[in-house]
Amino acid sequence: MPLTEDIAAPIAADLDEVLARFDAELASDLPFVTELVDRVRGYRGKLLRPKLLLLSASAAGGIRDEHLTLAAVVEMVHMATLVHDDVLDEADVRRRNVTINRMSGNEAAVMLGDFLISHAYHLCSSIGSTEAARRVAAVTNTVCEGELMQIHHRRNLELTEREYFDIIERKTASLTALCCELGAHWAQAERSVVDALSSFGRDIGIAFQIVDDLLDLTGSQDETGKSVGRDTEMGKLTLPLIRFRAAADNERRAQLDKILSNGHENKAAHTRAMLAESGCVEQAFEVAREYVERAIAALNGLPETDAKNALTVAAEFVVQRRT
Amino acid sequence: MPLTEDIAAPIAADLDEVLARFDAELASDLPFVTELVDRVRGYRGKLLRPKLLLLSASAAGGIRDEHLTLAAVVEMVHMATLVHDDVLDEADVRRRNVTINRMSGNEAAVMLGDFLISHAYHLCSSIGSTEAARRVAAVTNTVCEGELMQIHHRRNLELTEREYFDIIERKTASLTALCCELGAHWAQAERSVVDALSSFGRDIGIAFQIVDDLLDLTGSQDETGKSVGRDTEMGKLTLPLIRFRAAADNERRAQLDKILSNGHENKAAHTRAMLAESGCVEQAFEVAREYVERAIAALNGLPETDAKNALTVAAEFVVQRRT
Repeated sequence: MPLTEDIAAPIAADLDEVLARFDAELASDLPFVTELVDRVRGYRGKLLRPKLLLLSASAAGGIRDEHLTLAAVVEMVHMATLVHDDVLDEADVRRRNVTINRMSGNEAAVMLGDFLISHAYHLCSSIGSTEAARRVAAVTNTVCEGELMQIHHRRNLELTEREYFDIIERKTASLTALCCELGAHWAQAERSVVDALSSFGRDIGIAFQIVDDLLDLTGSQDETGKSVGRDTEMGKLTLPLIRFRAAADNERRAQLDKILSNGHENKAAHTRAMLAESGCVEQAFEVAREYVERAIAALNGLPETDAKNALTVAAEFVVQRRT
Repeated sequence: MPLTEDIAAPIAADLDEVLARFDAELASDLPFVTELVDRVRGYRGKLLRPKLLLLSASAAGGIRDEHLTLAAVVEMVHMATLVHDDVLDEADVRRRNVTINRMSGNEAAVMLGDFLISHAYHLCSSIGSTEAARRVAAVTNTVCEGELMQIHHRRNLELTEREYFDIIERKTASLTALCCELGAHWAQAERSVVDALSSFGRDIGIAFQIVDDLLDLTGSQDETGKSVGRDTEMGKLTLPLIRFRAAADNERRAQLDKILSNGHENKAAHTRAMLAESGCVEQAFEVAREYVERAIAALNGLPETDAKNALTVAAEFVVQRRT
C-alpha cells in the first residue's frame, strides 16, 4: 500500500524543489565530502518531516517560498540525528545501506553529522528573519536533551513510563511538532491553527517513536531495512518492556532483567519470546493508535482540503508502517 | 608570564558578561545535563576566541551588546569542537580533566557536542539579524570540511604541505578569522578594517594550529594538561613530519614511515627521537613565527589603542605558549 505516495500527491512538485535545495546546500568541492553526502542521501526514506511541514503549510493557508527552505532544513536536521544515532546505537544497517559509522568509522560519522547540522543552520539563516532559526535551534536543543536523557537512563531497568514519554517527546516529537508549527506559522495561520497543527505533529511523533521502538524489538532487518534489536542491546527500555516489568511478578521480572543485563546473548530474541504471551506489544501498539487518533482529532477545526486529508493519511501511516 | 591576563585587561568586565551569557544559555533543568555542562566548563582555558572577538571590536570602533553574545557563541562553538575532537582523537585528558568521552562514553560526548553547537546557534539567532548566524554557520561548515579532510588523510604519509595548510586553515583558522571579522563588522568598521582583522585572525589561527601540533609531538601531558602524542597515534601528519619526509633520504623516510605505521609502539617518542637532529621542529616553529609576524603587520593601519596592543600580545602569545 503506497501510503507515502498518497500523502505526497498534493505537494509533489514542492517536494522536488525541497530536495533540490537540500542538494544545493550540501554541494561541496571536496570529493570525499560529496561521497559521504551521497551516502547519506541513500538514507532518505519517507521524507515524513518535509511532508508534514508542507502539508501543514498547505492545510493552514498555502505553501510559500520559505516553506521550501524550511522543509529542506528539517530533513537535514533529521539526517544529522540519524547519522549520530547510528554512532550511538553502533548500528550497521540503515535503509538497506551500510551505515556511515560502519563503512567510514565513527569519526567520519560524527563529523558528517556535524557537517549536516551546520548546513541545516546555514540554510535556515538564509530566510529573512531570525525567528525560524531561533525556533529550529530551540528544538534541536530539546532533541539533544532527549538523547542525553536516553543515554543517562541506559541500563536503568527502573525507567518509568513517564520518563520514557519524556524522552521520546523530546528526542522525536519535538521535531515533528516543529515541522507542523513552521508550516502553519509561515503560512501566517492564526495562533489556534498553529497550535492545533503543532499538537498534531507532537502526537504523531510520539506514536511514530513508539512504533519505531516496537519495530526494533519485533521486526527483522530484512523487513525494516535497518539494524534491529539495538534497544535491548544498548540497554534502552521501551514501552512494552516497561509495561511488562510493571505487570510481571518478581520472578518473571527478574528473568527479563537477566536477559537485559550485560553479557546476555541475543537479547532481542529472548525478550521477544518472554513478551510473546503478555500482550504488552499489542498494548504499546494500542497506545500509539490512541496518539494517532488524538492527532487526527486536533485537525477537526481545519477546513477540508487535500492537504488535511493527506495529514490524516500520514497519521494513520505512522501506526501501519512496517519499515 | 601571565600573558593571557595582559590580553584581557582592556576587556575584563566585558568578558565576565560573555561568560554569564554562556552560562545562562546552557542552563538546564536536567541535572545530568548540568553535570556534563559543568564538566565542559572545566575545559575553559585561555578564552582566546572571545578575547579576539572583543579586542577586534574594541580596536575597530568599540564593543556593542551584540559582541558580548557573539563572543559567547564562538566560545560555545569552540567547546563543541573540543568535545567532538576528543572523541575523534580518543583523548583521555583535556585541561588536566578527564575528557567527557573518557568519563561518560563516546555517546554522551557526541550528544553533548551536539547540545553545545545547537545552543551556539540558538544564542546566535537571538541577535536581531540573520547575518551573524549565516556567517557563523558558513564557518562551521568550513570547520567540518577541515575535520573531514583530516580524517580522509589519516595514515596518508604522502600528505603535502599544501594539503596540511588547507586542513588547518579550514578547521582552525577559519574560526579565529571569524572572531576578528565579527568583532570588526559589528563595530561597524570599514571594509578594509574588517579585512585586516580577519586576515590577522586567520594568520594567528594557522600559527596556533602549527604550535598545537608541535606541542602534541614534543610536549608532555604534565606540561600541556592534555593528552599528547595523539597525532602520530591517529596517523595525522603535521608540519615537522612533512618537512622531515620531504628532506630525508629514502632510508630515513622508510624508518619514519615504519614508526608511523599501524601497530608500532610509542610512536610519538620514536618520532621525536628521529626528528631531534633534523631541525624540522625548529623549522615548523619558524613558520608559525612568520605567520604571527604577518598577522601583526596586518594591524598596521589600525589606530594605536590598548586593544590593538593586546591583539599584538595575543599574537605573540600564540608562539610562546607551552599549553
